[in-house]
Amino acid sequence: MGKLKEVISKIESIDISLIEKTQNRLDNLTKPQGSLGRLEQIAKQIVGMTRNENPNIKNKVIFTMAGDHGVVEEGVSAFPQEVTPQMVYNFLRGGAGINVLARHAGARVVIVDMGVAAKLDIKKPKAKNFIDKKIGPGTRNMTKGPAMTKGEAIRSIEAGIEVFEKEFTRGIDITGTGDMGIGNTTPSSAIVASITQARVEDVTGRGTGIDDKTFDNKVRVIKKALEVNKPDPEDPIDVLSKVGGFEIGGLSGIILASAANKVPILIDGFISGASALIAYKLEPKVKDYMIASHCSVEKGHRITLNFIGLKELFDFDMRLGEGTGAALGMNIVEAGIKILTEM
Amino acid sequence: MGKLKEVISKIESIDISLIEKTQNRLDNLTKPQGSLGRLEQIAKQIVGMTRNENPNIKNKVIFTMAGDHGVVEEGVSAFPQEVTPQMVYNFLRGGAGINVLARHAGARVVIVDMGVAAKLDIKKPKAKNFIDKKIGPGTRNMTKGPAMTKGEAIRSIEAGIEVFEKEFTRGIDITGTGDMGIGNTTPSSAIVASITQARVEDVTGRGTGIDDKTFDNKVRVIKKALEVNKPDPEDPIDVLSKVGGFEIGGLSGIILASAANKVPILIDGFISGASALIAYKLEPKVKDYMIASHCSVEKGHRITLNFIGLKELFDFDMRLGEGTGAALGMNIVEAGIKILTEM
Repeated sequence: MGKLKEVISKIESIDISLIEKTQNRLDNLTKPQGSLGRLEQIAKQIVGMTRNENPNIKNKVIFTMAGDHGVVEEGVSAFPQEVTPQMVYNFLRGGAGINVLARHAGARVVIVDMGVAAKLDIKKPKAKNFIDKKIGPGTRNMTKGPAMTKGEAIRSIEAGIEVFEKEFTRGIDITGTGDMGIGNTTPSSAIVASITQARVEDVTGRGTGIDDKTFDNKVRVIKKALEVNKPDPEDPIDVLSKVGGFEIGGLSGIILASAANKVPILIDGFISGASALIAYKLEPKVKDYMIASHCSVEKGHRITLNFIGLKELFDFDMRLGEGTGAALGMNIVEAGIKILTEM
Repeated sequence: MGKLKEVISKIESIDISLIEKTQNRLDNLTKPQGSLGRLEQIAKQIVGMTRNENPNIKNKVIFTMAGDHGVVEEGVSAFPQEVTPQMVYNFLRGGAGINVLARHAGARVVIVDMGVAAKLDIKKPKAKNFIDKKIGPGTRNMTKGPAMTKGEAIRSIEAGIEVFEKEFTRGIDITGTGDMGIGNTTPSSAIVASITQARVEDVTGRGTGIDDKTFDNKVRVIKKALEVNKPDPEDPIDVLSKVGGFEIGGLSGIILASAANKVPILIDGFISGASALIAYKLEPKVKDYMIASHCSVEKGHRITLNFIGLKELFDFDMRLGEGTGAALGMNIVEAGIKILTEM
């Protein structure tokens, strides 16, 4: 808990005076005032976050964290749990969606095993971008009790902080979040329902593509998990431990550590949104450092963004996760900065 | 008229069978079906347009066409007409918004004088990316009669076609449209009101930023131009000649020629939207080749996109024109293609 408390205490609000100063600079460029809309807002926000009046986005890092979920034994997903390690191998081979879009954005991808339910066989030389932070072989089935202990919840967040801090020594100018974990829309919906107090039906979607029957079951499962565990909406660690996931906690740690180090964060889709919600409940100032990349097809994501007070950059009906939305958003953030620094 | 007719006759619908084939290919990638939403749609659409199952966007070209408008003497703009040539010089120096965003997108910008109301002093060696197609020194005041003759309207479109065809010999894999012209939201609103039959109030915005009084006057001016000229909504050449502009006609020519050559077109903001509307009324099949980059703050743009049946990629509250939205959209189109070709 020491590391978590320390990181939270380091998070400062963005610099409002620099934002005003940047607005003046933008107003003196050869264009009608405000005519580049959101791009100008992004530029100001990044200056306010980084305290750098001429920010330069060189080192882009996407953290794709993987974990498994005991609740899959309740039949909430269209895919078997074996897909989680398969996708981790795929990420390391460079053939997945996130690899393509990260290359396109000029970002490096850091893959983290936060709790995959399989012993991963990863050859050292090929895995410079792999970090093992496994908290456990998947969470426990949250319909039968807490998904993890309170200690594991804190360790998962602190593991995320450690991952960020390690990579930060190599340089990070912008952070992207990403997730992989069969079944992880289920704990994400449970987290969002608990913290925002929305109805389970209103924050539950079809994940990778389940049918009506499986969807009805998924809603029942989430309701049962909330009834059995009664997470305290005002205690995000309690929520994470009872109905969360290791990769979700890890990403909360990435977000908190990035904000503590004044590095802008592009939030990916619904699972990253649940992580952002936990980080936000731990320290609301973290919001200043967040940029929502897209709004996921998962309907709980809109409610999550509204709760935090974020507006997405784009809505492409995406629901892949992995950090794909965050990767796409990076080009837009860079465009905003270049308006300020090159025009 | 011969060239225009010839180009229109060359425009073919996109290849539906290739789109279906590409859908199958996308469904076999390692991701849940359809989970990359709009990116997958873009990939399919580009294959259907180009008839290339592995499209490669290498040569990106943004055509930024400039023209002046006699109607500015009615006091419809916040800026004086002298700004049009100043901005052309700025484009050629590389310091404008479009230059920054085109560099960011890896696109080259071709600046075209379609009808600037000043003799431009352009030094040859510095102006490899400048083309002189001046139809006249600005249009005439459309509240007192047609903005241009029918012959000039056709010549402006054909000039756009010539510009495209010249640049096409150097290679174009994707086209972006862009405009510059003080006062040009006024003819654009008139075109959109005429063709879509929307109320003038519903398609008129504040351009570069006019106050309430100037706005009321702008609405009156557009209404008067439509009353005086009575353009035939079913005859886009009639509409262009009576209430259009030289750069607007030029961009219609760019769009038609790009479609005729099976090159995807990213439509920029409101003025480009008016050009797209004219091209669409001349040949509805041109729509298959259009991708709307953003939705402008100018409220007539939404009505224009709906009329053609286009959905924008993003909405950043932009209203600069120049091709800035088109430039931003190029990165997204490339991302969609890479999902297909690299995943």
